[in-house]
Amino acid sequence: MITKAKLKDIKSLQLKKNRQEQQCFLVEGAKSVLELVHSDFEIETIICTESFLSQYDEIEKKMSQVVNVVSEKILTTVGTFKNNTQALAVATTKPNLAPKLLNDKLVLVMDDVRDPGNLGTIIRIADWYGIANIIASETTAEFYNPKVISATMGSFTRVGMYYTHLPTFLMNCKTQVSGAFMDGENIHNAKLSKGGLLVMGNESNGISTEVEAFVTRKLTIPKFGKAESLNVAVATAIMCDRLV
Amino acid sequence: MITKAKLKDIKSLQLKKNRQEQQCFLVEGAKSVLELVHSDFEIETIICTESFLSQYDEIEKKMSQVVNVVSEKILTTVGTFKNNTQALAVATTKPNLAPKLLNDKLVLVMDDVRDPGNLGTIIRIADWYGIANIIASETTAEFYNPKVISATMGSFTRVGMYYTHLPTFLMNCKTQVSGAFMDGENIHNAKLSKGGLLVMGNESNGISTEVEAFVTRKLTIPKFGKAESLNVAVATAIMCDRLV
Repeated sequence: MITKAKLKDIKSLQLKKNRQEQQCFLVEGAKSVLELVHSDFEIETIICTESFLSQYDEIEKKMSQVVNVVSEKILTTVGTFKNNTQALAVATTKPNLAPKLLNDKLVLVMDDVRDPGNLGTIIRIADWYGIANIIASETTAEFYNPKVISATMGSFTRVGMYYTHLPTFLMNCKTQVSGAFMDGENIHNAKLSKGGLLVMGNESNGISTEVEAFVTRKLTIPKFGKAESLNVAVATAIMCDRLV
Repeated sequence: MITKAKLKDIKSLQLKKNRQEQQCFLVEGAKSVLELVHSDFEIETIICTESFLSQYDEIEKKMSQVVNVVSEKILTTVGTFKNNTQALAVATTKPNLAPKLLNDKLVLVMDDVRDPGNLGTIIRIADWYGIANIIASETTAEFYNPKVISATMGSFTRVGMYYTHLPTFLMNCKTQVSGAFMDGENIHNAKLSKGGLLVMGNESNGISTEVEAFVTRKLTIPKFGKAESLNVAVATAIMCDRLV
């Protein structure tokens, strides 16, 4: 039986301050919890309904030490979903380590991407295109925010994020740095190399001038109609589809 | 001065039933209201703050007959935004008319796209690629839902939607019908024609079997990593970027 104090502890992970203090985060919903179980993340606790457990006996076998059966009501109270009828896990966060940059592997760079839904969708896109690493400004949405984790649809288990002061990082970086701008080279005609960094900017303001200074190649998605801009996740997807 | 009864009327347009009864819908936020003013939609009422009006005197000049100044508090109470410090308009809905299909113009088809945010983003993408028409199943999210309108970022003024029973519509349709599937032809290698219909399916289940029967060309976005799927708006964007 899981104690009330423990449930309160889990619920407290909805807040960033507590995630940072406890170095733990929430993973919610059946798909995400299943992906987590098959990942290299350390799992602290799983709480789930009887019916979820009976559907996935691998969880009971592999995770019996940490699994607790609770009601849907408790699951929903503890987590951030409007309704959670399946499962929720608490996992340990990973250290913030710089990835090794390889010449033939594309790495995404987030310059102040604020919306958790957008960041989560971008992590899912990165995973689709086999991009293993994202580097982000310290002002970018937090990887372990429950909205980010849930929008990744399980891809948070395969894509790593590194938060840093971007200008300093880019100053010491030897690979090509591409960036998405409104007035760059048309990606439909540009000869593109496979690797390097691709910088995507803030939802309203695009790439900051401090970061722009390090962009060696400005790229643009050609427009045929009249919309002023594209959503940053949508733009990232189109760029990746052309660059990977 | 706007009456309390009128404000209650406006607020009631948050519900689909009332939008259908009154044949009116809400347009919220500065950007959307400005786009509306420059569109061919008929505007019934605008309510806005003093500061919004002083910033855009074109509104005062063009729209003086329908403009009412209110407080931010009233604006926020009446609309669906968490905070609205600028403007909100009520406009008349358009009749549900089938678009004329042209051989060299791409038209999008939504087969049960349920999420208003996804539909709004798709309308914005269509507008970016100069696609003027979207045809949708009757189960697709409603064009005039405030969440759809707001996610289009003003593109609702340039993209028309037609709701119909898709199998009947497609049966009588002579243009090529492409569709996004997990096991179709790789869009990176496929020779693509410019026009025709492009069907996108439901968020969880993809294209229904009833609609699949009319798809003459199955297309797929190649995957390089491990994510199970892409968000439907993201997939639509990648498809459009290759097809337009």
